[in-house]
Amino acid sequence: MELQNDLFLRAAKGETTERPPVWLMRQAGRILPQYRALRGKLSGFKELVETPHLAAEVTIQPIDELGVDAAIIFSDILVIPEVMGLEYQMVEKKGPWFPETIKSMEDVQQLRMGAEAAAELEYVYEALRITKKELKGRVPLIGFSGAPWTLLSYMIEGSGSKTFSKAKKFLYTQPKAAHALLDKLTETIIVYLKNKINAGADLVQIFDSWGGILSPEQYEEFSLPYIKRICAAIDEAPVTVFAKGAWFVLDKIGDLPCDVVGLDWNTRPEFAREKLGANRVVQGNLDPCVLYSPFENIKTKTKEMIKGFGGNQIVNLGHGVYPDTPLDGVKCFVDTVKSL
Amino acid sequence: MELQNDLFLRAAKGETTERPPVWLMRQAGRILPQYRALRGKLSGFKELVETPHLAAEVTIQPIDELGVDAAIIFSDILVIPEVMGLEYQMVEKKGPWFPETIKSMEDVQQLRMGAEAAAELEYVYEALRITKKELKGRVPLIGFSGAPWTLLSYMIEGSGSKTFSKAKKFLYTQPKAAHALLDKLTETIIVYLKNKINAGADLVQIFDSWGGILSPEQYEEFSLPYIKRICAAIDEAPVTVFAKGAWFVLDKIGDLPCDVVGLDWNTRPEFAREKLGANRVVQGNLDPCVLYSPFENIKTKTKEMIKGFGGNQIVNLGHGVYPDTPLDGVKCFVDTVKSL
Repeated sequence: MELQNDLFLRAAKGETTERPPVWLMRQAGRILPQYRALRGKLSGFKELVETPHLAAEVTIQPIDELGVDAAIIFSDILVIPEVMGLEYQMVEKKGPWFPETIKSMEDVQQLRMGAEAAAELEYVYEALRITKKELKGRVPLIGFSGAPWTLLSYMIEGSGSKTFSKAKKFLYTQPKAAHALLDKLTETIIVYLKNKINAGADLVQIFDSWGGILSPEQYEEFSLPYIKRICAAIDEAPVTVFAKGAWFVLDKIGDLPCDVVGLDWNTRPEFAREKLGANRVVQGNLDPCVLYSPFENIKTKTKEMIKGFGGNQIVNLGHGVYPDTPLDGVKCFVDTVKSL
Repeated sequence: MELQNDLFLRAAKGETTERPPVWLMRQAGRILPQYRALRGKLSGFKELVETPHLAAEVTIQPIDELGVDAAIIFSDILVIPEVMGLEYQMVEKKGPWFPETIKSMEDVQQLRMGAEAAAELEYVYEALRITKKELKGRVPLIGFSGAPWTLLSYMIEGSGSKTFSKAKKFLYTQPKAAHALLDKLTETIIVYLKNKINAGADLVQIFDSWGGILSPEQYEEFSLPYIKRICAAIDEAPVTVFAKGAWFVLDKIGDLPCDVVGLDWNTRPEFAREKLGANRVVQGNLDPCVLYSPFENIKTKTKEMIKGFGGNQIVNLGHGVYPDTPLDGVKCFVDTVKSL
């Protein structure tokens, strides 16, 4: 089905567009009353992730409610560790928790990988197919994956962490096992993203959410090369790389064979343009907390940011929208971009 | 009493030294078996903070055990909010928790401040006097405070947070109350640090631990000017400013009237030198997780870092040492610097 609004895809490919496209990371989530109503009826977060027609429903909610220029499939980055062999639970108000973690090369060797593991995620592909059908071509659909390092960090640490010191310790003390795990993750992510594209994703985004916790040297050894392999392997659709906090390797992220570079809210437009050049397509990067402020301020800050990047931008926040953000603030942000 | 080892102070003042001085943030803490033994006998963390001879004892432990070139008084940044009127608890394995938080200008107006508030911290000054006496001039003694923004963030948020979105929301929605609170904090911190210097601190360090969570604009409005006021007001001793994660304003931190600029482990020496110049004294910044790795790697990475900065450096980690770091790894780090 032909897209009625392909602004997002044209911008991702570097084409000049009438206005910049806009969407929000975590737009399918708690900011929407429709989401909260549905979620309240379910046993938990994972039921929503694993039930294709429900995942499709919440994916489409922000398109109806906010009028954003792209949909992003509702899912979770930790489905990949799970199908590789590490089950996890999503603990209310605490976040993910893995009863078993990776401690050695032996543990790594026992993990499933590649097409075999990715095949287990049929419920994700089905959610994409349903979404694609129900979107009726209104906007493009984004698929995503965690980056290998970010997924490894949960598989070692077993949960979120302020420092991810266990995961970093693993890199320093068992580098061979770390590389073996990153390799398995990379092979799995590649098949997973290709399957997602086959199921209807028009673009895929790689989230390196914990990139900023690494030292520059560790980032270059344990994260960047694997993201590069993924980018190089995906030629069926454009690819966005968002490495949160990894400002110290932004020039190298700019050299990746990807189409769009995601930016967090700490990154000034001038710094990004200095490191990436004027023509690189960027995505971001308003401070999500600006959406708590009065409408006038939201409008001003949004316009300033867009002016700062000087084009070649997909407008977004510099982080996922926070669950308690007022819906009217979110709408003001989207409408400001759409009025340009 | 004259200092037998004044390497740290001479380096802080920009003098050329035989070798770079070395100490570790959080060196008085769980990495030491002596600390764990003492802590196990107490009711909690705050008993240790509030009992001068015990705080002095753990302050001196790393001097005996590690042979570092400076002592840092064992204390907590949250004693300032407490004497301003917000009591807190230190919850085991969870961190600080404030039963009451600041929600409005009215709340701000009710807080004590300045000399009146700082006078309540006699137990800290007494700990400094005891430590100074018991150190017998072996090494200089560091006093410290949280930066105004970092203290405000706990006073609004009520606990640690991944995003500090409540605190940032306060800045965006109640900027006048935020500035009033930052002003009160600043006036209190200035007296507090002067009192600490009177009690024996040879240098004071300002920790802006949550600086990296702010957008560049917010940092320039809500953090930097207050740190500047503190730096300008303290002329009795050298001042170190460590704004973790605030890479995006490093040039402006370099312009502060302080003596030493602390750096986190994400910051490459080349970036720091580009923003700060060759002569600025820096402190840091080895990745704390390097200390988990084999001795050879600790030695190599430590030497590489020191070479990278090319002098004018106080060697430290880029963050507080993590509690589960092997003591032998810490010693290898210290000894590597001392062997230069």
